Amino acid sequence: MQSPAVEREPQSFDTVVSSMCTEPHPAAREAAERFLATNPGDPATYETVAELERTVVADLARLAEHPAFAAGSDGDHATADRYGYVTSGGTEANIQAVRAARERHRRDGDTHDRDGAGNHRGGEPNVVVPASAHFSFQKAASVLDIELREVPTHPIDGDPEQAGCVDLDALAAAVDEEPALVVAVAGSTAYGRVDPVTEVAAVAESVDAAVHVDAAWGGFYLPFTDHDWSFADAPVDTITIDPHKLGQAAVPAGGLIAREPATLDSLAVATPYLETHAQATLTGTRSGAGVASARAAFDALYPDGYRAAQERATELAAWLDAELTQRGYTVRPRDLPVVAVDLPESLVAQLREAGWRLSPTAAGEARVVLMPHVDRESLTALLADLDRLR
Amino acid sequence: MQSPAVEREPQSFDTVVSSMCTEPHPAAREAAERFLATNPGDPATYETVAELERTVVADLARLAEHPAFAAGSDGDHATADRYGYVTSGGTEANIQAVRAARERHRRDGDTHDRDGAGNHRGGEPNVVVPASAHFSFQKAASVLDIELREVPTHPIDGDPEQAGCVDLDALAAAVDEEPALVVAVAGSTAYGRVDPVTEVAAVAESVDAAVHVDAAWGGFYLPFTDHDWSFADAPVDTITIDPHKLGQAAVPAGGLIAREPATLDSLAVATPYLETHAQATLTGTRSGAGVASARAAFDALYPDGYRAAQERATELAAWLDAELTQRGYTVRPRDLPVVAVDLPESLVAQLREAGWRLSPTAAGEARVVLMPHVDRESLTALLADLDRLR
Repeated sequence: MQSPAVEREPQSFDTVVSSMCTEPHPAAREAAERFLATNPGDPATYETVAELERTVVADLARLAEHPAFAAGSDGDHATADRYGYVTSGGTEANIQAVRAARERHRRDGDTHDRDGAGNHRGGEPNVVVPASAHFSFQKAASVLDIELREVPTHPIDGDPEQAGCVDLDALAAAVDEEPALVVAVAGSTAYGRVDPVTEVAAVAESVDAAVHVDAAWGGFYLPFTDHDWSFADAPVDTITIDPHKLGQAAVPAGGLIAREPATLDSLAVATPYLETHAQATLTGTRSGAGVASARAAFDALYPDGYRAAQERATELAAWLDAELTQRGYTVRPRDLPVVAVDLPESLVAQLREAGWRLSPTAAGEARVVLMPHVDRESLTALLADLDRLR
Repeated sequence: MQSPAVEREPQSFDTVVSSMCTEPHPAAREAAERFLATNPGDPATYETVAELERTVVADLARLAEHPAFAAGSDGDHATADRYGYVTSGGTEANIQAVRAARERHRRDGDTHDRDGAGNHRGGEPNVVVPASAHFSFQKAASVLDIELREVPTHPIDGDPEQAGCVDLDALAAAVDEEPALVVAVAGSTAYGRVDPVTEVAAVAESVDAAVHVDAAWGGFYLPFTDHDWSFADAPVDTITIDPHKLGQAAVPAGGLIAREPATLDSLAVATPYLETHAQATLTGTRSGAGVASARAAFDALYPDGYRAAQERATELAAWLDAELTQRGYTVRPRDLPVVAVDLPESLVAQLREAGWRLSPTAAGEARVVLMPHVDRESLTALLADLDRLR
């Protein structure tokens, strides 16, 4: 059995309705193709793409209302690499946020938290996440060898105001030892819920833990909503925002942004063979295509195009919700446009057989993620198949 | 200060002589562009690219003489994902190899290595690397929170047979506690040296440690040499080989190959939201462009094109070596075509000012890496500038 031909075509996006990936914006695709053979991981050799990366980081920081890159100030991209970088995706950004918090916990333990004999007083650090957190935090815990504590979310079939968001009482109870990090989810993978970031940060602050906001998916919708999620909204230390999801850049282009340069410093290792002297990234060689495409997407879409995408997706989610509710199905509450619906398992299986790329939540609901490539036409076709099969 | 224009062009490769990245093969570029919007990290949604990935893993395993994918057998790509995956690059592959060894050490500790009270007998695991190992092992140690022990290499200005290779006596002395992993470098970043893999593996076996071969760069040249490096040559557990270096694929396409499926199993975490149930990769969303380009590069180049590239680079290195030696400079010994030359620091600075992307070794030599894009013409221009400036 040999090579099933690279000549085959990739999937069409017409039937992809549960993915958090999408088609890159045409300008992003063009830039990705042009910068395919560049490596921002070696900035002295590949200078142009390294400079593009700094501008992308500055724009991500501005999107997340970072105080050093306030809207209108136009920031200063020359120093942006002290505040973040373009990661391979949200998983790397989340792993690095947990890693930075682990290092901070150790450092603070070294100076403040020792008993008379010079021993570290407390136990091992842990990271506290809502049960709604992406499975990348499981990876982070496994890789970084740090305890992961999952805090329950409010039942998805309970009070719609809170359903699927972290239970703050349970969170307060879980942080009794010495968490290195408390995570808030701003746009959950299953339901598009946004945790109460300000309240989560207050709990974290009470035990001197760092605060990370996972807005990997939601980060390009949230600025156009009233939700608290940014550096300006709460004492957040790090944020994950991925250009290659709703930013309409090409894969791989995730984003990690930190409030303090010390966070990036804590991730750095020395780099012989390169003209630069330290590297804070988890990977070494990195994709210039992702970086250049993120630059081009920002140029094409920030802010009006991103706002229009958010408004369009929100309206489309409301329309799909109404269509499904009218058919007697239960649609879960959401903050951002993910429509999770309690379809019978056999019906989901039939829809998948009919070609729909429909993935479930952990609880088994079918999930439609309103990405830029998902439109009224594809959802009408989905509903038609649903009507035919149910 | 705003966007320094994505319209600017990336660097030309004409003057890039120290990078381990290169221009992708034209077929690889075409495939990368076609599969730009796919995600092998979600194989139920992006089936085609996931299948292409399995064929790439099978081909990498075959290149590394994996017993389950022996040459001529055509292997069985259907099961290839049990033996490896296409990583974001060599760094991820090396981190994952160390992580798998750490997990194995713990597991074996649980069953074999306990004292009467049920406590694990030994100390913490460590990973033993030659001083020539890539800095990704520093990252691995930092991320995975495992001790890194560096073993000296033979002096680069000593016996040319051993210069720059791991000192086996020092290695034997360093493994006295309980290493989880011993690393051999097959194509060092600085000098292109290949450690004596069989002897390194024997030392590792004597203390029941796992063996990893870092052939991230060398893996596509080594099959056409007499060096021991593969699964067939020694009891090696894991190998890093990167298609996006000498494999002439597009970034990001690294490779991790394991002898045993248990290695991949030890890296897996559960994956809700996806139809598949576990993920052994460090990243989540991954680049279909890298995977498809690796498939296309194998189709275009394996094995004759890769052999021709190795022969051409070897001859070019010998020619450059002779030219530099004739000018009175000291060229370091090598196994694979990396020409490290002891130029005065001021001359290297002048060459960099003249536009050459020339990076140093840790010891300060200038390094020319004979990648496919480096040719007689570009090296003649480099020598002309050198003659003008010295």
